[in-house]
Amino acid sequence: MRKILIIGAGKSSSYLIKYLQDKSQSENLHITIGDVNIENAKKLVGKNSSVNIIHLDVFNAESRSKAIKDADIVVSMLPARFHIEAAKDCITYKKNMVTASYVSKEMEALDDDAKTNNLIFMNEIGVDPGIDHMSAMQVIDRIRDNGGKMLLFESFTGGLIAPESDDNLWHYKFTWNPRNVVVAGQGGAAKFLQEKQFKYIPYGRLFRRTEFLDIDGYGRFEAYANRDSLKYQHVYGLDHVRTLYRGTMRRVGFSRAWNVFVQLGMTDDSYTIDDSINMSYRDFVNAFLPYSPTDSVELKFRHALKIDQDDIVWDKFLELDLFSADKMVELDKATPAQILQKILMDSWTLDPNDKDMIVMYHKFGYELDGEKRQIDSTMVVVGEDQTYTAMSKTVGLPVAMATLDILNGKIKTPGVQIPISKEVYSPILKELKTYGVEFIEKKVPYLGYNPLNL
Amino acid sequence: MRKILIIGAGKSSSYLIKYLQDKSQSENLHITIGDVNIENAKKLVGKNSSVNIIHLDVFNAESRSKAIKDADIVVSMLPARFHIEAAKDCITYKKNMVTASYVSKEMEALDDDAKTNNLIFMNEIGVDPGIDHMSAMQVIDRIRDNGGKMLLFESFTGGLIAPESDDNLWHYKFTWNPRNVVVAGQGGAAKFLQEKQFKYIPYGRLFRRTEFLDIDGYGRFEAYANRDSLKYQHVYGLDHVRTLYRGTMRRVGFSRAWNVFVQLGMTDDSYTIDDSINMSYRDFVNAFLPYSPTDSVELKFRHALKIDQDDIVWDKFLELDLFSADKMVELDKATPAQILQKILMDSWTLDPNDKDMIVMYHKFGYELDGEKRQIDSTMVVVGEDQTYTAMSKTVGLPVAMATLDILNGKIKTPGVQIPISKEVYSPILKELKTYGVEFIEKKVPYLGYNPLNL
Repeated sequence: MRKILIIGAGKSSSYLIKYLQDKSQSENLHITIGDVNIENAKKLVGKNSSVNIIHLDVFNAESRSKAIKDADIVVSMLPARFHIEAAKDCITYKKNMVTASYVSKEMEALDDDAKTNNLIFMNEIGVDPGIDHMSAMQVIDRIRDNGGKMLLFESFTGGLIAPESDDNLWHYKFTWNPRNVVVAGQGGAAKFLQEKQFKYIPYGRLFRRTEFLDIDGYGRFEAYANRDSLKYQHVYGLDHVRTLYRGTMRRVGFSRAWNVFVQLGMTDDSYTIDDSINMSYRDFVNAFLPYSPTDSVELKFRHALKIDQDDIVWDKFLELDLFSADKMVELDKATPAQILQKILMDSWTLDPNDKDMIVMYHKFGYELDGEKRQIDSTMVVVGEDQTYTAMSKTVGLPVAMATLDILNGKIKTPGVQIPISKEVYSPILKELKTYGVEFIEKKVPYLGYNPLNL
Repeated sequence: MRKILIIGAGKSSSYLIKYLQDKSQSENLHITIGDVNIENAKKLVGKNSSVNIIHLDVFNAESRSKAIKDADIVVSMLPARFHIEAAKDCITYKKNMVTASYVSKEMEALDDDAKTNNLIFMNEIGVDPGIDHMSAMQVIDRIRDNGGKMLLFESFTGGLIAPESDDNLWHYKFTWNPRNVVVAGQGGAAKFLQEKQFKYIPYGRLFRRTEFLDIDGYGRFEAYANRDSLKYQHVYGLDHVRTLYRGTMRRVGFSRAWNVFVQLGMTDDSYTIDDSINMSYRDFVNAFLPYSPTDSVELKFRHALKIDQDDIVWDKFLELDLFSADKMVELDKATPAQILQKILMDSWTLDPNDKDMIVMYHKFGYELDGEKRQIDSTMVVVGEDQTYTAMSKTVGLPVAMATLDILNGKIKTPGVQIPISKEVYSPILKELKTYGVEFIEKKVPYLGYNPLNL
């Protein structure tokens, strides 16, 4: 028996658990799930399962180290900041580890210890980060192996609502942490590389500098720039590339409307509004508009943002009941971002039958045999229901597959790492296809931003 | 002989020193000026002066405490963050102290010690803060003494260029710290009170929510909101006021043009641009605009900000040589704000014959005998030259007068304080008039924001 310890059984672990459960006989796996709240785990594993569910508080050193000591490999599905204690135990007891989270500085610092002990600490193997790394590196490596020279790499991901559940004017619902959506893009200018020039977009312009992306069968999307498009430049071996851009996908029109919230200051998370508990939604909006004894909040809003009454943007705000004098904020001393999140959750919370969707779009521009070429590669995954979501699938399956590949010795290279080597991505991308997680490649004319070399 | 120690003899101490020098015989004053750089002090006091100039490093405890021990009163004209060591010595050696700076938390913490030792630590007695406190409180106290009830208080100050030296399209030059101008308004939403409603303006809207102010003989100004208009609400006794607003004055049109820098992200001080040393002004602007192999930086700029070519705003940017491909940034790894400051200093640095101007505008709305009334009070001070500036006058004279009033026992109340009591402001405002620092009051119809009580 190979013993797998999964710490944390939240929203995104449904596919992970199912995959490993399904393979438990053929692969001779013994699965233990530890969480502070074991209800969700119980639901996920079902009644007649042989999966062992234990109460585990990752901050209780004794029970944590006991569980880790007893496992062959540890999968941490906790929020990123909770991994490190488990990771240190994994060094102590010489266990491999898998997470879907960004490599923190603390995690990075364990690299030497992991290598010394011949341990694999695989991170960023979910979705953005995860499948994006693997699918990008597979194409980049292939282009290079064929003698091509990379010129451009752009990569976009979006967690959206599936077309069949898309029933609001924003074409958006919260399929993941709403707070991250509300504060997205804050904290500094977005930086990227366009034709060898560094470009900077301040938060106030971020949602007006979008680009369009079309996916066959799914229509048009738009993308706004991520804070740091250059994060993986060196890691991907793209130091000499002309264009490097990473972004977040939304349906067309979302960003133009969202920009109104940004402009008014309604996404600000840096101060609290004293009397928010007694505010209606209308009062909240009015706090960002000049006082007038006569003009309506609606007209002041439209005037401030120069929105015509027949502009579709306007209908988006009406749909949210943003000007309601009856609906109350009901949050005490809340930040504008917290209040906006509450208002949006009224409208953007998933209905029980709603399905989510993960979309990904890569552009690879390169030169081969003196000719500029481009490959566009796209992925769409639609969820089954609200347990087996697209998000859970694209996070959980690669985590589960990496876990098994490590146990089976397919992944051998030790150290704190992310999935950018062939050893890791080749078998996993191949297996993901059998689960419908598949990239479709198209050769397109090289577009770049200066195709004619003007 | 009463011994005055002045620490720091920078730009704003010319009038301070002249005032005290002029009174040294009649008031029996012995003046010592201490600075790390004594050149400016030498220039200011002249050749045949009896003023004692010493080399004094405020961080050298020994020489600092020796100088303070030897004085009867200490005036610190250092930047605010350097006051505290001198202030602690003043407690130790039981000396009164005067500064023109905002009361820091560290300074505030000395209040008990100051009171115990019967010491006066007068702060914020320059210009904004200073003359604004005194002139506002004089009118507010008078309104209250007459049985009036305050409804509205708005207060605006601007450090500007004098009309006779106003020769650029922005109607602005740097008469004070340029850096403060470039980053003005950053760090959180501006908060104020309008007709009992809290209003918030994010940085990205700050320069579009201005209000106009007319001063007889000087024409029209505009004002944008300060970060915290409520700072002195309680101190001024305005807890129940309907409207409270503090702002910064510029000539009309400045803010609309400045907003373009804000929107593009050129005032950002939170990150550095790696290759700034090799950038032309044009490259710098282009870093905030999308790449194009063909479109000019000018057209991209106008398009992004929707500026027509015959808009006066456009000429303002041309005047700054913002699109010059020849002028180089010449700053290594600079923030956008630092680069913008450099570009502006090319155009906005004072010529040798330029004069500065300080303008102040207060609005006092109140109810008396069941009737709503309003007093508008304005002050304009124009500098003599680049040594005897309006800034130096409005900062230095009240500091000097307070120093003498403390020595002469006219100001008696001990503690860490700001000049809001009659004991302090009455004699100083009266004396300031004789130096041409004078407020002109006008009764105007009560405007408020809801004069008809709709």
